[in-house]
Amino acid sequence: MTHSSPVWHPFTQHAVMPDFPVIDSAQGAYLTAKNGQRLFDAISSWWVVTHGHCHPQIIEAIQAQAAKLDQVIFAGFTHDPAEELAEKLIKLSPGGDKNADGLSHVFYSDSGSTAVEVALKMALGYWKHSGEDRTRILVMEHSYHGDTIGTMSVGERGVFNAPYLPLMFGVEKVPFPQVGAEQASLDALQTACAKGDVAAFILEPLVLGAGGMMMYSADCLAKMAAICKAHDVLLIADEVMTGWGRTGTLFASEQAKICPDILCSSKGITGGSMPLAVTLCKSKIFDAHYSQDRTKTFFHSSSYTANPIACAAAVANVRLWEEEPVQERVDNLAQMQSAMLSCLMASGLFANPRQAGTIIAVDVAVEDGGYLADIGPRLYRHFLAGGYLIRPLGNSLYLMPPYCSTKEDLEGAVACMIEGVKGL
Amino acid sequence: MTHSSPVWHPFTQHAVMPDFPVIDSAQGAYLTAKNGQRLFDAISSWWVVTHGHCHPQIIEAIQAQAAKLDQVIFAGFTHDPAEELAEKLIKLSPGGDKNADGLSHVFYSDSGSTAVEVALKMALGYWKHSGEDRTRILVMEHSYHGDTIGTMSVGERGVFNAPYLPLMFGVEKVPFPQVGAEQASLDALQTACAKGDVAAFILEPLVLGAGGMMMYSADCLAKMAAICKAHDVLLIADEVMTGWGRTGTLFASEQAKICPDILCSSKGITGGSMPLAVTLCKSKIFDAHYSQDRTKTFFHSSSYTANPIACAAAVANVRLWEEEPVQERVDNLAQMQSAMLSCLMASGLFANPRQAGTIIAVDVAVEDGGYLADIGPRLYRHFLAGGYLIRPLGNSLYLMPPYCSTKEDLEGAVACMIEGVKGL
Repeated sequence: MTHSSPVWHPFTQHAVMPDFPVIDSAQGAYLTAKNGQRLFDAISSWWVVTHGHCHPQIIEAIQAQAAKLDQVIFAGFTHDPAEELAEKLIKLSPGGDKNADGLSHVFYSDSGSTAVEVALKMALGYWKHSGEDRTRILVMEHSYHGDTIGTMSVGERGVFNAPYLPLMFGVEKVPFPQVGAEQASLDALQTACAKGDVAAFILEPLVLGAGGMMMYSADCLAKMAAICKAHDVLLIADEVMTGWGRTGTLFASEQAKICPDILCSSKGITGGSMPLAVTLCKSKIFDAHYSQDRTKTFFHSSSYTANPIACAAAVANVRLWEEEPVQERVDNLAQMQSAMLSCLMASGLFANPRQAGTIIAVDVAVEDGGYLADIGPRLYRHFLAGGYLIRPLGNSLYLMPPYCSTKEDLEGAVACMIEGVKGL
Repeated sequence: MTHSSPVWHPFTQHAVMPDFPVIDSAQGAYLTAKNGQRLFDAISSWWVVTHGHCHPQIIEAIQAQAAKLDQVIFAGFTHDPAEELAEKLIKLSPGGDKNADGLSHVFYSDSGSTAVEVALKMALGYWKHSGEDRTRILVMEHSYHGDTIGTMSVGERGVFNAPYLPLMFGVEKVPFPQVGAEQASLDALQTACAKGDVAAFILEPLVLGAGGMMMYSADCLAKMAAICKAHDVLLIADEVMTGWGRTGTLFASEQAKICPDILCSSKGITGGSMPLAVTLCKSKIFDAHYSQDRTKTFFHSSSYTANPIACAAAVANVRLWEEEPVQERVDNLAQMQSAMLSCLMASGLFANPRQAGTIIAVDVAVEDGGYLADIGPRLYRHFLAGGYLIRPLGNSLYLMPPYCSTKEDLEGAVACMIEGVKGL
């Protein structure tokens, strides 16, 4: 083993990647390594950084909260950062403050995976406590919802999770709504829902992230939500990646004018500074668990549920959305990204151009596509050497930069992408 | 619904608990509510706080790291806090720095539940990539390992997880080794292991926390480890609660002089300040995933894997163990707790006294025992009114205080416990 550090990195084959840049500091859209190299963080450090690294207001909030109240048990206790954040989230969420059937409650956890685990448990608890026998989960083809046993179970089967299949539960799959083939997906959803045993349909609204930045229309999403509603199937929107402006609106669900029954958020919730996750739900789900019968309690927790420091970071993030022209920055970035997509396509090297707000993606035509496409690591190293953190998803390349990125940053990234693919 | 806040609390039946103390600040062993009430945190805020709340060195580390590098993707990148912490953990872990077969690698995640999910996936990946068909998981009766689908599956079935049974995978259960009945457990373990299809045996060493602070001997633990070794069954030690001094030694496994194949840690790893978790493993498990064949990659992550701020907090925690007489404080606390246990038993109100290091527990004799015993909420409210955060586990009462607790703190808690039970 040539890997001398005891650290085992995530989604990393150490045998083919022996060395790691050691990052020392970060500011705005840039990472600085110990050897002095500066890198443009073109994927927002796994899609978490929104306003930029080490945003002063977020960092100040972390520092102040840490000095006052680091942690307190969240069973039977509460604190201002969690209460303030929950109020703000309900107001900002799709349909949240606008009608009686909006999202009304906030359950805290630590990561996108646990936010989805909570969502699945809320759905099963809702039906159990409502006296209906509904336990089947519907999922969308090519989905990714996390890496715990439960979240892998509702995601696409494949190389990611083959060794763990014996522990995973079965689900029913709805075909991905490819442009032009939406009706087939809608029909499949309709047929599955009509069986009457479906507890919930979970999806990533508009963009399937780890599945390869696959995109589908807001119109199709709206129709899917309508089918769920007609059959009383709970709709779980996993907005872990799509939330906090990525797709052009604060949450992607807004573009379809839908209000999911359950909504998962993480990543950008703290502006990309610290782990935190939330699962929002409608009051009917909370109410089904609300009872003098203590066996109906929602038995879920983690030790650090609603850590005050993380909640304070998230409150600072939401204040930035309220007080600064963040939406304007998102709009500008989306416009610049549209121009970048044109540049990429003008090179003649790419196929399947797609965009959702601040996210653009293209495919490199290769024979062995898929997540383990051989070109991925080669291009990754080329981009890194050029000063760009761009992490291919198989033969798909995408840019999902922080909202403080400049035209020059993006132009440099695009030039590096074109050069890299030319050199293959 | 009388609950006016949008916050849905963990392990909390809002219908029977309408009001929550709002905690404003914390210092040492004390929480301060907005109404001015001070509470002795006798359960270390769900077993996470070790040195005391808002320990200056830990808070300074958080503040400094936040200003420098908040977050960076941990696939293909690294940073000093994660590297330094991993080195220290390997040295401190049971058998870690002492022999070639010790724990050698550290995988980061966010919570105790995810640390266990990672452990289960490591075990299944190990056998799959080693070409052996072993997927069965053995568990100990009355265990608790977390609230995700995977961790619930390896925990005790019951009121905690009844609605989610359709999503949980099956396991084989070894009886809890009650004092005097250890041989039956050992025989059951031996029989299960001999089948040859067992991937791993997961247990909480010495103390089963949420199961009701049930304790068993280090001798029995050592024998269980030997049986696993004889049958090549991986031993997973879930030290999420037992780690960081709680049972009198840094890790509980030390008392049995064993080195598990996989060890999970969280809670006290940051001194109780911020969420972070690690899964340590022996080199044979890392090696089984180390390959030019990229399908053998360990495909697990969360967005914030090895968050630099959380790692910096954990490094500060470990430095306290290295530089301050923390072990001496643990020893003193364990001695005081032994005296407290005598006081409780002298009252004649309790049964089944037990202690593991800094943890003491007793049972209140009632007809309806178990987690939902009616006396739990009544006693909880009594303790709270008296200025003590003591959270009954059904009819079991326990004290698991921070290491800075004084004799007066403990005496007050014991007096309140006696008074509360007398008043039932």
